[in-house]
Amino acid sequence: MTTALPLNQISAGDAAAAIAAGKLTSEALVAACLDRISEREDEVRAWAYIDAELALKQARQRDRETPRSRLHGIPVGVKDVIDTCDIPTEYGSPIYRGHRPACDAACVAQVRELGGVILGKTVSTEFATRHPNKTRNPHNPGHTPGGSSSGSAASVADCMVPIAFGTQTSSSIIRPAAFCGVIGYKPTYNLINRAGLKFLSESLDTLGTLTRTIPDAALIVEELSGMAPTSFEDVAALKPRIGFCRTSNWNQADAPSQVALESAARTLAAAGATVRDVELPGEFARLAQTQIEVSSYEFFRALTHERTRFPQLISASLTARIAAGGKVSRAQYEEGLVLAERCRKRIADTFRDFDVLLAPSAPGEAPRGLEATGDPIFGLMWTLLLLPCLTLPHGKGPNGLPLGAQVIGPHGRDTALFVNAEWVRRALRE
Amino acid sequence: MTTALPLNQISAGDAAAAIAAGKLTSEALVAACLDRISEREDEVRAWAYIDAELALKQARQRDRETPRSRLHGIPVGVKDVIDTCDIPTEYGSPIYRGHRPACDAACVAQVRELGGVILGKTVSTEFATRHPNKTRNPHNPGHTPGGSSSGSAASVADCMVPIAFGTQTSSSIIRPAAFCGVIGYKPTYNLINRAGLKFLSESLDTLGTLTRTIPDAALIVEELSGMAPTSFEDVAALKPRIGFCRTSNWNQADAPSQVALESAARTLAAAGATVRDVELPGEFARLAQTQIEVSSYEFFRALTHERTRFPQLISASLTARIAAGGKVSRAQYEEGLVLAERCRKRIADTFRDFDVLLAPSAPGEAPRGLEATGDPIFGLMWTLLLLPCLTLPHGKGPNGLPLGAQVIGPHGRDTALFVNAEWVRRALRE
Repeated sequence: MTTALPLNQISAGDAAAAIAAGKLTSEALVAACLDRISEREDEVRAWAYIDAELALKQARQRDRETPRSRLHGIPVGVKDVIDTCDIPTEYGSPIYRGHRPACDAACVAQVRELGGVILGKTVSTEFATRHPNKTRNPHNPGHTPGGSSSGSAASVADCMVPIAFGTQTSSSIIRPAAFCGVIGYKPTYNLINRAGLKFLSESLDTLGTLTRTIPDAALIVEELSGMAPTSFEDVAALKPRIGFCRTSNWNQADAPSQVALESAARTLAAAGATVRDVELPGEFARLAQTQIEVSSYEFFRALTHERTRFPQLISASLTARIAAGGKVSRAQYEEGLVLAERCRKRIADTFRDFDVLLAPSAPGEAPRGLEATGDPIFGLMWTLLLLPCLTLPHGKGPNGLPLGAQVIGPHGRDTALFVNAEWVRRALRE
Repeated sequence: MTTALPLNQISAGDAAAAIAAGKLTSEALVAACLDRISEREDEVRAWAYIDAELALKQARQRDRETPRSRLHGIPVGVKDVIDTCDIPTEYGSPIYRGHRPACDAACVAQVRELGGVILGKTVSTEFATRHPNKTRNPHNPGHTPGGSSSGSAASVADCMVPIAFGTQTSSSIIRPAAFCGVIGYKPTYNLINRAGLKFLSESLDTLGTLTRTIPDAALIVEELSGMAPTSFEDVAALKPRIGFCRTSNWNQADAPSQVALESAARTLAAAGATVRDVELPGEFARLAQTQIEVSSYEFFRALTHERTRFPQLISASLTARIAAGGKVSRAQYEEGLVLAERCRKRIADTFRDFDVLLAPSAPGEAPRGLEATGDPIFGLMWTLLLLPCLTLPHGKGPNGLPLGAQVIGPHGRDTALFVNAEWVRRALRE
């Protein structure tokens, strides 16, 4: 082994290198993850379904093969809104208790093809919306892990698995990653194939990842999409141009988060970045509400089967949001798309002057209680703009829970986002 | 009844009006469609699955209710790549023999909510690609109906059902509609919700309709999307500006098709339209090949489960196309999307001078034989441009089979397309 860390704590990249070098078996790695889950799952409740024997069987099979890719032998958690053919997929809803899809989602089948091991299904909120499920924050079980990718964020944070798939329509990767203190990465829209994902809002739903390192986020998306591998070798030599973008919702961030992010901006400048404040054009302030209208118009339709056949099995909060979506007219929806498209062009201009933007990931640390998953406000605009976003841990809130800093890149420039975010991560650590 | 036509031949709009007025029952309408199917299905083979009793039961239920919408009591055929929870969905592939999804696709659940009757599943080619299935052209069973919406086009043409859903990624609505002599309508991308559609190429897959009238195409998409109803009252007063766009593939259309379309252009001018030739910028000639690269990059990924687990159950032709898709690099794919995006902007400029474009629907009449579904060439570019397209019957080929004329509108202007296409239809009839 190239590292002294316990096996369940090592990164996917290090583990895959050790497996390829014959210094580690997938079975040992998967067993270490399963041990951690046995130890901690009663408290964290990150998993919707685990079949330990099935996971070990996959791992032993991988150990008999020549490595197929940089994911060979690596256990991956799969958010439970993504179809799996051999273990249940319940979409976070009692409507689908015990449901077994006929077919793996594309991303799941690709992980298997690449030699990865599907460790199990991670807990999702109800249809990846806001209504909470059973997962607790691994840093303090009295606090929410965030949502909707609750189990993916909590399991990765608790070192139960090195990589888990999440999905984001509003802030469902960035928020739980920030609350749990891990790397949350929402790619540019349309980077990971979505076949077999339970759709909520097809214009926005984006598959992404929860990991503990930025190179691990790069690794899996590169293998799935065929992107060229990112080199992190020259990160130290970067001098990123960073736009500090408080956004029009800045006053919804609490004081400790504001202080932490402003301090981050100063630290980055001191470390050699060019940091300048960015104020977005006025109409960007409408994007959060527009995201709500566009997504709810779509999920009113996408969930027609469920809302017409099983209204009593849908939470009160989702029922209310669906009803609101039913009242969004086609004209309103189209106006929203027009505004979004115009702002996508304008933000592309902004990125001529900046490599990345720095913005809040969430209004604060994970709120106390498990009745809600926190406010998605700081994800809405960026998701609607289809931009690649990455949150990394920075600082602590008043209860000692992690805070996040969100780094946003230009459309389609995910590789540049990775290296600049890695520069930011290192600079904030020093 | 407001019409002397047999019940199975009347339009959805006329039928719904008669049902709403208490002059027709859904049961009688559905029974007439089922009778036609009994009579003709051995020859046409349009249906993947019909449960006559289930359809009649739905119709009787509708007859006990106050009409819910303009679709109330209307039977609808559903292409078998669209999920239905109460009857099988086989995606045109032996891999899914007898498959029963847990959930209706959004469009199916919406039709039910709106009071429509799901008549049955219409035959699709293999995963909505080119490999043919069992359907024959209703005008001559020795000829292909086209694909991939083979059963939807054939069933509507043969008056087995007034409306059927189709899907288009290349030319899978326009081509079979032209070959079968019906109205094929591919909406602007993202007009009908795609949740529950088996994805082939998520950037292009578009749900649309096969009908016998243009108002019927408008009716269903309006009800599903919440678009304002199209008024056809002032169609006669229109003076459309029509761009005659032979496209760079013109020499792939056979002589009878070229003659028919040129004659159509003259007829339209004589009827009062302004008709001018449109030559698209040179780079548009690359769009057909780009569509092939973009879609195959995506279906290589979307079909990962099937290609890795059931390679022996995939046709040789699709196997070859999947392998080609696996060789398209991410960079090539992204270049394709960039070109497509640039051409979308350029064609928007073209539409400043024209209300609609007139172009070939297919290279000719339906080819003889059932081993292939015909060449999609005249759909590729328009699908990649995400534009609304409608084909209507015009003329006959050398074997007496229907030819089509394709009318294309500006992005998002589907209502304008309907009225201009209706003007064209009437002018070509006179």
